[in-house]
Amino acid sequence: MTKAVILLSGGLDSATCLAIAKQDGYELQALSFKYGQRNEFEINAAKNIAKSMGVTNHVIMNINLRAFGGSALTDNIDVPKNRDESEISSEIPVTYVPARNTIFLSFALAFAETTESNDIFIGVNALDYSGYPDCRPEYIEAFESMARLATKSSIESGSSINIHTPLINLTKAQIIKKGMGLGVDYIKTHSCYDPFETGDPCGKCDACKLRQKGFNEIGLNDPLNYIS
Amino acid sequence: MTKAVILLSGGLDSATCLAIAKQDGYELQALSFKYGQRNEFEINAAKNIAKSMGVTNHVIMNINLRAFGGSALTDNIDVPKNRDESEISSEIPVTYVPARNTIFLSFALAFAETTESNDIFIGVNALDYSGYPDCRPEYIEAFESMARLATKSSIESGSSINIHTPLINLTKAQIIKKGMGLGVDYIKTHSCYDPFETGDPCGKCDACKLRQKGFNEIGLNDPLNYIS
Repeated sequence: MTKAVILLSGGLDSATCLAIAKQDGYELQALSFKYGQRNEFEINAAKNIAKSMGVTNHVIMNINLRAFGGSALTDNIDVPKNRDESEISSEIPVTYVPARNTIFLSFALAFAETTESNDIFIGVNALDYSGYPDCRPEYIEAFESMARLATKSSIESGSSINIHTPLINLTKAQIIKKGMGLGVDYIKTHSCYDPFETGDPCGKCDACKLRQKGFNEIGLNDPLNYIS
Repeated sequence: MTKAVILLSGGLDSATCLAIAKQDGYELQALSFKYGQRNEFEINAAKNIAKSMGVTNHVIMNINLRAFGGSALTDNIDVPKNRDESEISSEIPVTYVPARNTIFLSFALAFAETTESNDIFIGVNALDYSGYPDCRPEYIEAFESMARLATKSSIESGSSINIHTPLINLTKAQIIKKGMGLGVDYIKTHSCYDPFETGDPCGKCDACKLRQKGFNEIGLNDPLNYIS
């Protein structure tokens, strides 16, 4: 079986991405990060998802992005609440973490190189992407070009690293529909930027809003426990 | 003063690179990594160099590249000794760390973004580069292209991130000459892959050999204490 590396945050998108890599027939290697998030419920979600989907090798990497700051997800900045769709998409929000996907993909590249894998999956999305620069197709293409020059195999045999972004052109509703068809159990996922101490989602941050809207569009309720 | 981020390993090249950024008039922000190296003498060297060169902000980031393995610098693989120049340049050595410069530059990009800097310095070298793929000019150019699409400023104002590689076309001898002209105190640097417990260099690994050769070519002795 060909090995792939899948970036797994524990959220809805990355869980779906993992299911797609599984369907594509890859041996699944997952990579998650503790990066000084204000909550670590998503790491537990990532562990449960990895276990239930047959991941053979799950690496959880500790990196302290708090050392740089600059984000509501790593600093003591308030997470925006109750914004409507036009507000969410109007500007880059304070939940953006500087260079996060570049750092995540770089570690995925190291993981791929040491396990002789050429395939990296990341669940970025250019439609419901909250305005993050490092979720755009042109960014991903540029990362792939760089990655093909970065590793040992690029000198020895010609690198064929591929960055797979199966969700990039899907709406949240389409992602959920796809994942349900592949048996993803979304109750295991965690998306909220600012959960209660119990781990239950706030229901009000951009991540909760986008997710609920996705379920609603296909006539379903998000299975998570939203406390109103 | 314009801020720059300089990757500072504590070795001869990065110390020289820092001195060049200083001469260019930047406010100096340095970034070093504890990455599961077999020795941490180079971190102490980085601290001393940063202090002596007037660095205003020195971030030391802990990342565990041992989680992936694949290198003599992070695993229990023997460091090659007493190789001559043709052997050193004939193939990628076991001291290569998978995707290391990509990971280092990604963190530098995050540091630059949070401090509103557009300038990143890295002391890579394409001549005496020990055959590492991520020291080549084409790799650096590809990283720069990617970086210009990766950050908030790339959407808001058009990114002008520059990856500076002032040593890329210099021989080790030319690097040392340049650094001495800028007042670099090379006794503070650490290059050895496999030092004694005292921190003194082995004198036999590729890093020691390349460094000694550099000093010899300009008629000097390396100031470090080589125990024979």
